[in-house]
Amino acid sequence: MEKVTFLGGGSFGTALSILLANKGYDVSIWDRDEKVVDEINLKRTNDKYIKGLNIPKNVTAFTSLDKALKESRYVILAVPSHVIRIICENILSKINKDAIIISIAKGIEERTNLRISEVIKSVLPENEVVILSGPSHAEEVALGIPTTIVASSDNMDSAKRVQDLFITSNFRVYTNDDLIGVEIGGAVKNIIALAAGVSDGIGYGDNTKAALMTRAMTEISRIGLKMGGRLETFYGLTGMGDLIVTCTSMHSRNRRAGILIGKGYTKDEASEEVGMVVEGIKACKAFYELKEKENISMPITDVLYKVIFMNKDPEEAVLELMEREKKSELL
Amino acid sequence: MEKVTFLGGGSFGTALSILLANKGYDVSIWDRDEKVVDEINLKRTNDKYIKGLNIPKNVTAFTSLDKALKESRYVILAVPSHVIRIICENILSKINKDAIIISIAKGIEERTNLRISEVIKSVLPENEVVILSGPSHAEEVALGIPTTIVASSDNMDSAKRVQDLFITSNFRVYTNDDLIGVEIGGAVKNIIALAAGVSDGIGYGDNTKAALMTRAMTEISRIGLKMGGRLETFYGLTGMGDLIVTCTSMHSRNRRAGILIGKGYTKDEASEEVGMVVEGIKACKAFYELKEKENISMPITDVLYKVIFMNKDPEEAVLELMEREKKSELL
Repeated sequence: MEKVTFLGGGSFGTALSILLANKGYDVSIWDRDEKVVDEINLKRTNDKYIKGLNIPKNVTAFTSLDKALKESRYVILAVPSHVIRIICENILSKINKDAIIISIAKGIEERTNLRISEVIKSVLPENEVVILSGPSHAEEVALGIPTTIVASSDNMDSAKRVQDLFITSNFRVYTNDDLIGVEIGGAVKNIIALAAGVSDGIGYGDNTKAALMTRAMTEISRIGLKMGGRLETFYGLTGMGDLIVTCTSMHSRNRRAGILIGKGYTKDEASEEVGMVVEGIKACKAFYELKEKENISMPITDVLYKVIFMNKDPEEAVLELMEREKKSELL
Repeated sequence: MEKVTFLGGGSFGTALSILLANKGYDVSIWDRDEKVVDEINLKRTNDKYIKGLNIPKNVTAFTSLDKALKESRYVILAVPSHVIRIICENILSKINKDAIIISIAKGIEERTNLRISEVIKSVLPENEVVILSGPSHAEEVALGIPTTIVASSDNMDSAKRVQDLFITSNFRVYTNDDLIGVEIGGAVKNIIALAAGVSDGIGYGDNTKAALMTRAMTEISRIGLKMGGRLETFYGLTGMGDLIVTCTSMHSRNRRAGILIGKGYTKDEASEEVGMVVEGIKACKAFYELKEKENISMPITDVLYKVIFMNKDPEEAVLELMEREKKSELL
């Protein structure tokens, strides 16, 4: 069996490591937090990120990157999007050229506006890169609940290898060659989840949120098409599917942060309370700047940016999104 | 102010009657259940359908159709889809030709496969018909929670009049001239909500349901386009928007019935327990027959039909939906 290494012992990385260990792979997890590493190796749990796990014996955690990466054929970057570049720089001299790099992070890089796969390629140009994305809360994947996900790459042979690596009867992996569409949809949906959380936090209902999510699909498609993605991807698992799960589940940290912001917390207080990186906040800033530069209408991103970074009243903001000049749905 | 009559004192009719009464209209509700009528008139509540309401004084309930319909300019059919035809026959001699008939029911007629607006037109050919549809749980509308909805008709002047009738700052009404798309999307989404409930009832997660809902959009679009609707309608408020709210909210009786079926109840036990008509069960039968006749692939409807009417195991059914021969998302 080939060796697989996860960089980052967070919730999704840990869930996938259990899945692969159950398939018989030799799995390493690297994490900089010694407590997390010791808990995985000694107690077979990772309670900080997912409570109640039973991590198989063929998963070993390390604080040493060298040991974790030794002879690895698949390297999964299970870290927040803003850490991707530095992690890639750190592993550049430690990985084989034929190792496939897999990312589960969602976002675009601040300032450069590069997609995650572009950031990885810019540092590790000789390695193949595959993006895993779709409606897949870690807490449910860890429990073996039926889940679908997409492996995307500009090299479909690599995407298919990653499909074979992860697929089980309960974890259905599909390939999609629209890498741009997969990455842009995944990043923008975190902004929408934050906005959906704000609506919930104010005390608005399912009716309000469903309207917001429906309008969001137009927004995702508009920026996504401009970036070069395909419409069918935005209405597939990595777009609409992931949007639904992220906006409606309490597992979503973006939604939880939004709920707190809707209740009056600042973005920093909300992030602190959620205790993990809130990708939607970073994505909101990045896409706000991108849409301004490209002159694209993204009303939800626009209004959310003003709530988060310019102290706009959340209630006023959501109501503003509900009001439309036009009186016909389709015109 | 013009007079408005609701036929049926259920949850959505009552919620809308409060909305119109608050706008100053003279509102009548007809219901055959004397207890409901007395409770509305004497206690200003309708606890059987929505708890905790305060129904304004300008709403009057009747058990007499003649009294309820007297001088009415707008007649709202707030009854389940299978009762639409008989109600229309009952009011034929009692309404003015210039009264606009508004329906909030979702479904297609068994055997004839007629849409609701077609059923109404077949009995009341001289009256204009408008369909109200969208993500709008009655419980939230009654509380004034921001909601969007669509008024659709083959006569846009009538749709605009209904828009003006209902619109408030928290209840945004849009028009849409794709009557077929609005009606088909609204009917099929009840089938999907039932299937989503089955998935929840088995104990599957948000990941599973999001995948199901994403695939459902293909199914809704396929039958909807065949029937003559437009793709943008299916991805708008009355399609995707209503699908989201119905599949994720506990307010949805279709979802609640599905949960019970997922737990092993028969369709009759589930309907009994929910205590209101479960439109998705009727729609599942009607669309199963329609898809067989028209030779259209509707895998969710197909599998759900087998669970409900042919004792197929629900868990096996949902897993069957997750499995796909093809390995690429887009092909």
